[in-house]
Amino acid sequence: MATKETQTLILDTAIDLFNQFGTAKVSTNRIAIACHLSKGNVHYHFKNKESIIHSIYDRMAYEIRTEWNDEVEAPTTKDMATMFNRQLHQLWDYRFFYREMVPILATDEHLRFKFQIDRKQRLEEVTVFFKALRQHGLLKEEMSDSALDSLIVIGWVLTDNWINYIEAGKTSVNDSTLFNDEYFHYGYRLIIDLFRPYLTEQALVELSN
Amino acid sequence: MATKETQTLILDTAIDLFNQFGTAKVSTNRIAIACHLSKGNVHYHFKNKESIIHSIYDRMAYEIRTEWNDEVEAPTTKDMATMFNRQLHQLWDYRFFYREMVPILATDEHLRFKFQIDRKQRLEEVTVFFKALRQHGLLKEEMSDSALDSLIVIGWVLTDNWINYIEAGKTSVNDSTLFNDEYFHYGYRLIIDLFRPYLTEQALVELSN
Repeated sequence: MATKETQTLILDTAIDLFNQFGTAKVSTNRIAIACHLSKGNVHYHFKNKESIIHSIYDRMAYEIRTEWNDEVEAPTTKDMATMFNRQLHQLWDYRFFYREMVPILATDEHLRFKFQIDRKQRLEEVTVFFKALRQHGLLKEEMSDSALDSLIVIGWVLTDNWINYIEAGKTSVNDSTLFNDEYFHYGYRLIIDLFRPYLTEQALVELSN
Repeated sequence: MATKETQTLILDTAIDLFNQFGTAKVSTNRIAIACHLSKGNVHYHFKNKESIIHSIYDRMAYEIRTEWNDEVEAPTTKDMATMFNRQLHQLWDYRFFYREMVPILATDEHLRFKFQIDRKQRLEEVTVFFKALRQHGLLKEEMSDSALDSLIVIGWVLTDNWINYIEAGKTSVNDSTLFNDEYFHYGYRLIIDLFRPYLTEQALVELSN
């Protein structure tokens, strides 16, 4: 296998194992066995488990950056739904990261700095998007920047932790049937209810279609 | 030492180590050393690390149950602030649990069931409290039960994960200077902004005093 292919195999396998068992219970050796590679081969590509997690983060950040082209010229409530839907999919794919965010960030200073830069930038982009919604008459004009900032942070924390909230209430963790209507529709309903008092008639009509 | 004292020492020490280093990096042996106890003595009281975590959860749940006497006869916005403040304090004391909630619950089925019963009950109590606020003219009468339910779940997820959100943005994790104005005041401002569209004039006057 070419280097690129081997690395992709290692990362895909690691994501799957981390999602199933948590990072603490998955060693690089276990990843190597699941890949049918020697321990030495895995170590040739990745120094240690932290380095695998760091590369997984980089892939996730890249996907966010390239897939999320928010429509800010003429945003609609449909774009809002698409944005949220995309985010929930991505959170599910990399759910181990959201389950263990603080412990993971605590062990890797460089990853933490990257994460913070990415989060800051993404929060700014989301703010631009919601301001565009307001400008285009979908959010009420009287909604202050300060109220908007608060609701964006609240929506952010809600979204990032939505899998955790649902999983903590289930009889078994990491059950792929979770990835269903309850997860998507209930989560989206909360986001809409969060912004509801500030939605204009136009937005409510759009949403009911 | 009496049994009770020894167990308290083990739990206090474990909470401190888990908060500092995460549960994955703290063995029962490390807890024993930090307590100046033999490994055998720790195992006499607690079968394994999961059993220590389970007992820590029980203590946390007991504290919540006994300390949180929500005022539902004549609730004020001050009670809302007190409730939130108390919750943030408790979250800080047991922050390892909120950082690693899903991985912890995944390893202990009985703990998971207890957690679910407690969360359900607590969510119901919070709902009773907010309905009393509405009944006493602090939340607008036209706020529907469905909107109230949504905002309570949103507020719940926000509060449970507020430490994580703040910590993930900091240069160092587990820094006790986090336990400060930013954590309390910013968090409380978000909760108020979440409910603001539904607060009555009376509530807004109370809050500004």
